[in-house]
This record gives sequence, structure tokens and C-alpha cells, in this order.
Amino acid sequence: MAKNVLIIGAGGVAQVVAHKIAQNAKEFGTLHIASRTVSKADKIISSIREKGHTVEITAHPLDAMDSNAVAELIRKIDANIVINVGSAFVNMTVLQGCIDTGAAYIDTAIHEDPEKVCEIPPWYGNYEWKRREACEAAGVTAILGAGFDPGVVNAYARLAEDEYFDKVESIDIVDINAGSHGRWFATNFDPEINFREFTGTVYSWQKGAWQENKMFEVGREWDLPVVGKQTAYLSGHDEVHSLSARYKDADVRFWMGFGAHYINVFTVLQNLGLLSEQPVKTAEGLEVVPLKLVKAVLPDPSSLAPDYEGKTCIGDLVKGSLNGKSGEVFIYNVADHKEAFNEVGSQGISYTAGVPPVAAAILVARGTWDVKKMANVEELPARPFLELLGDLGLPTRVIDATGDHPL
Amino acid sequence: MAKNVLIIGAGGVAQVVAHKIAQNAKEFGTLHIASRTVSKADKIISSIREKGHTVEITAHPLDAMDSNAVAELIRKIDANIVINVGSAFVNMTVLQGCIDTGAAYIDTAIHEDPEKVCEIPPWYGNYEWKRREACEAAGVTAILGAGFDPGVVNAYARLAEDEYFDKVESIDIVDINAGSHGRWFATNFDPEINFREFTGTVYSWQKGAWQENKMFEVGREWDLPVVGKQTAYLSGHDEVHSLSARYKDADVRFWMGFGAHYINVFTVLQNLGLLSEQPVKTAEGLEVVPLKLVKAVLPDPSSLAPDYEGKTCIGDLVKGSLNGKSGEVFIYNVADHKEAFNEVGSQGISYTAGVPPVAAAILVARGTWDVKKMANVEELPARPFLELLGDLGLPTRVIDATGDHPL
Repeated sequence: MAKNVLIIGAGGVAQVVAHKIAQNAKEFGTLHIASRTVSKADKIISSIREKGHTVEITAHPLDAMDSNAVAELIRKIDANIVINVGSAFVNMTVLQGCIDTGAAYIDTAIHEDPEKVCEIPPWYGNYEWKRREACEAAGVTAILGAGFDPGVVNAYARLAEDEYFDKVESIDIVDINAGSHGRWFATNFDPEINFREFTGTVYSWQKGAWQENKMFEVGREWDLPVVGKQTAYLSGHDEVHSLSARYKDADVRFWMGFGAHYINVFTVLQNLGLLSEQPVKTAEGLEVVPLKLVKAVLPDPSSLAPDYEGKTCIGDLVKGSLNGKSGEVFIYNVADHKEAFNEVGSQGISYTAGVPPVAAAILVARGTWDVKKMANVEELPARPFLELLGDLGLPTRVIDATGDHPL
Repeated sequence: MAKNVLIIGAGGVAQVVAHKIAQNAKEFGTLHIASRTVSKADKIISSIREKGHTVEITAHPLDAMDSNAVAELIRKIDANIVINVGSAFVNMTVLQGCIDTGAAYIDTAIHEDPEKVCEIPPWYGNYEWKRREACEAAGVTAILGAGFDPGVVNAYARLAEDEYFDKVESIDIVDINAGSHGRWFATNFDPEINFREFTGTVYSWQKGAWQENKMFEVGREWDLPVVGKQTAYLSGHDEVHSLSARYKDADVRFWMGFGAHYINVFTVLQNLGLLSEQPVKTAEGLEVVPLKLVKAVLPDPSSLAPDYEGKTCIGDLVKGSLNGKSGEVFIYNVADHKEAFNEVGSQGISYTAGVPPVAAAILVARGTWDVKKMANVEELPARPFLELLGDLGLPTRVIDATGDHPL
């Protein structure tokens, strides 16, 4: 039986997910997209039509913070797979809707409480993993963090484990966006989520324990394929919080590239208190969360797509040993902003985040990943996922002892 | 008959005004201070008591945006002189209260409409000067812009006219704060007013016409007494808009000193749209004026006083000719942040702004400046004002052909 798909959210990543689902409609049954603002879902459907897809896809209004509303919609349209690319605040209610109805659940980023920044590690332990038993009891497949990072980079780590090393010593995930959007300043995805990633403690897993740093405290120059020499900074990121559970004896670090201009703007906003998620009161008595105003004045990330040029390079440098012999491998993808826009009307950051959950959905539909329990991506077979991603537009390359070659 | 004084406002400048009025209570009758938040006025009175002043001074609650309420309070306490150091938005209602009751009016900054930034020049023509005839008809003394700049610097220009030149060719007002407050970033007075000064067009009067520049477009290094070499930028400021009327044939420019750090923070905030006085709507539907939030997150300027160190230098470089012979004179004051705090519990910027309106009030009380009409400071005798300011803690010095000497 073909499986019906429900996409939750209608932002830049949802746009990519919807286009890719439409391109691969033969893998699924009926297609649906739900958003608090249904007109945003309608707009995505229009953009799919403009690409000539005649597939049936229906927009629905939904308050995804209400798990009963989620379950009701799932039942109404008989959805079998839910791809949650809504705001990071709705994970737990959407997951509950899936548990209540038996639908498979796929997301791309960790759950967040709007009032908390940077909770204690491991982050998955605060919300998602508390529902592990409930998923298993209900026989519900729930795949966590199936975007690019987290997601594909978790599969890269698993590939290194499966095919290169019997002992993994370190996993350094490096995320470089060498593209340019031509604006004075903009974030590549929701500013609220973007800044929240960097305002708290930077957690890394090193020497078998959580290490704490501040953002931009630890920087390192990397020399990567295509994008060249780039400075990236030790950053807090979801995947460190699951990979550290599977690779307890390895160091797990996440590095994100930033230019001096981004760091300057971030530093000014943070030092002034404008990135706070705690409300402040104006002289007129209005309570305002500064971060929400900053989000309101910044460009909508999806508006950047038409002018975005250049490439991204995201990969894992994994060091380890096989039969006592040390080695390293760099597993990576290079994506192009302009090609992403031409294909699905989104910029490269949304493209790399939106294609992987579609690959995951196809693998769930085919049964390969339909594991009837909660899993992070590194707990699932990596090769079928990475090979499918190559077909879907995100080819994996590998630099190992034999050189730089496709997977 | 001793004249009763009403101070409107209870911020950092009002604190200085109240202390100076208390120090010179023998010049006046009863003393009063009114604020929307009466507890702020109470706090100022407490700080006056701490300095050992036993003078009678009464706090009153007042919505100064309501001219009837202003008139009612003036009548109730029989005020003869109103010193308006409230927000820049209340000038016109307070002035109306004075016109309605016959009380003399003194302010230190131009009227502003909260919803407009940088109106067409001359700024005084938009609001204050429209009430000239009403003041004259009512026999009301209204002294505009009697702070330091505008105010004392206008008197410096008049002194140059009276005592140095028969033809004034240029007036360059230079305002350098070489002090340090020890905070990462703060404005020296109300952030809302501070930033509004710099977000619009920079108007200067040159070659007999209004010239337009952008903020930080034109910079010049100055070498000034005490504070040394400092970069100051052509800025928009009130006094240019009145001095240009009296000195039509002279170039009138205002230069304000800024460090690279201030300019960077300002540039980030402005380019992101966070200095806008126009409301923006957050994703949650809340309407917020960005500038008001920025004000809310920045330090309260009055909180800077205890740690403020260093000096300010504000003066006029006036060039002109006497009997056909060219010359120049620099007339200036140097103030010290720490001395100001020790004397009245405020930092130097508030001190230089708050002492001059008290000098003006004393001159009105004595009759010297009680002109029964509206006047900008340069239209009034300069020497009595400057000599009195010397007695009150803001001595004038002059650099002329004979060297650097006290007035």
C-alpha cells in the first residue's frame, strides 16, 4: 500500500521537502502540507505547479502546537508518514500526534522550549528520548534529526564506522557556507533558531565528557574541497548530543564557518542583550522578547534564494583505526545555491536541510528504515540513505587513502 | 517677589537642574519637580537631602503631554518659571501650559514628534517658532535650547559676534566626550533621543543654504585643549537651525566626536533596522518600535555616573573679521565627569546640559533675561549668562590672539 505523506511547516525547508516529495510522488500515496498560515502552504503548492508537477497535493491549516489537532489531521487524511519541518517548538506535539495514530515521524532539528536556550546535554535527553519507550510500545517509527546537520553528517559518521574503522577516535563535523546572499546581513534559516544556537554554552564531547566553551572562543582554519581555506568555530549542535552516545570513546565536535562580519553583528546584538529570549519591558510598558524583534527586522531567509550564489561544503573528518592501524577519512557533500534555486526555488542551506528528510521518508516507505521505534540517523543503515541522497541531488564524496572520489 | 520654579522631568539632566536650583535656592521662591513617575522625582529630592540641602522642594505627578494638566499644576503651585527637562516630546504641551498661565518657559532641546525623525530645516520652524507670536501676545518669556549644546555654544557664538568680529564667517561647534563609562556600550543620554539625532539627514548651513550629508560621512580630526586629538563627525544638531537664521552669511556646522566602537554598534543597529521609530510586527503579531526596545536593553544613562571618568570639551571655533582683518577664536568649556558626580550625583554630559538652564532661570528671575517673548540663546546677552555659568561650575575659556585664558 502506498503511504500518504503529511509535511508540517511551510518555510524554506518545507518548500524543498514539498518539491522533492512531488518529484518522487511515485514512492508515496496522497501528499499533504499543513501550516498555521495555510496561504504559505498554498504558495508552495503553486511553486510546485510552476515546475510542471501535476501531482495531487493538498494544503491544510494546522496549529501544530496542539497534538490533538495533529492527530485529527493525520486520521482525516490517513497519513502514514509525517515530515515535521515546522518550527523547532512543535516537535513534541507532532511526535505525540504520530504516537497517538501510528504514523511514522521524521524531523530535522531538535525540540526547543521557546523560553529556554541551550539546555543541559545531551539535548535529546530533555525531550525526544523521553518518548523512546512510547514509540516502541506503539510500534511507531520516529527518525530524529534527518536533515543535513544533524542527519546526513550522522550517516557519514556511521559510514566511517561501517566501512573504515573498528575504533572511531574522533568525529569533527565541519559546516561551511561559502555562498553570498548579497544582503548587508541575513541568517540562512530562521534567525530565532540561528541565534539561539550560538547564545548559550558550546557543548562538545571530548575525553569522554561534556566540555563547555563560549561561542567563537575556539576557532580553527580548515582547508576543504571546493570552498578552500575557511575559519570555523567550535559550536553547539544537535548531532553532537546523539553521536556522543554511540561513540562514547571518541571526541565529537561540530565546527561552523563564520566570517568576521557575521561575528561582529552577532557580538553587537548579543552584548546589547538583543538576542535574549527573555522579555524586557519598554518605557511604555510593552513586554518584548528581543530575539523576536531581531527576527522581525531581518530578511526572511526564504527571500534570499533568488540572489544566493556560491557553494556549501559540509562533511565529517573521522579519525580512527582499523586492525590497530590509524587513519582518517573526510566524507562530504558540496552543494550549489544557484542550482538549488533553479531546481526547487530555495537556497542551498534550505536545500541541504530539506532533501534528506525526503530520502528518509522514501526509505521508510520502502521499509528499509521503517524500524517501528525511535532512532537517530546513525543508528540506521547509512549506505542506502547516502546512495539515495546521491540520486536526489546531494551526492556524497570521500577523501581517503585512495584520494578524493564519489561514494 | 521671589519666583517659584517648576522642573519638569526626573532623568539625569533633571537631577542636575534640581541640585543646582537647590544650591541657589536664595534666587527663587518655592521649588517643585514634576514627573510622570513621581517616585523618580522623590529619588532626586532624596539625593538633594543627602547633600545636606534643607530647602523646601515638592514632587508632583504630571503627564506633561497634557497641556491642561501642565497649566493646572502651574496655577496650583503658582509657578513663575518652568524648566522643561522632560522628554523631547513634551515641549509643545509644556510651552502651551506656560502661555496659558503666563509662566516663563525654559528648555534644553528641540521638540520632537515621536513618529518623525529629522524633519525639514530649520527644525525650530516646525514647532517652537510657530508659537512666537503667541508668546509675545501673552508676554511670556520662552527661552529655547538653553542647555550646553544647544545653549552655551549659542552664547559662545554671540560672544564672538559681540566682542571679536564685525563679520562672522564660520561657526564650528565641536563636542568631544573623552570620558569613559566602563560599559561595553551605552549612550550618554536617552538612547532614543541620542540615536534619533543620527539616523536622519545631517543638515549643515554652508554657503547660504542647507547642505545635506549622511551621518559619519564627513569626519575631521580636531586638536582641542585637555582632550587632545579627536575625530569628530559633521552631525545634525538643534543649534545649527537657529544660529543659521542669525548668521545667514556664515557657515554653521556641528561636529560630534565618536570612537570606532560607537560607530560600529550604531552602524550594525541602523543597518539591521533596529533604530527605526516605525513599528514592525513580530511573527507573533506584536507591534514594536525597534528604537524603544533598543532603549530598553541599553544601560540607563543615569546609571553610568558613579563609574564615569575623564573629561568633556565643548566649544565654538568662530572665524570672522574685524575692520577687514581676519581672525579666529575658540571659546570652550572643559568639564570633568567625576567632579560632576561628586557634586550632584550625575555624569558630565548631564552636568553640562543641566547647569545652563539653571543659569537661564536665575537670569529670568533677576530680570536680565526676562524678555517677555520667545528667544533662542544667541538672541540674549551672552556675557551675563557665561559669567554666571562660571560661578555655577561651567567656566568659559577662550583661545584668541593673546593665548588660552579664562573669559
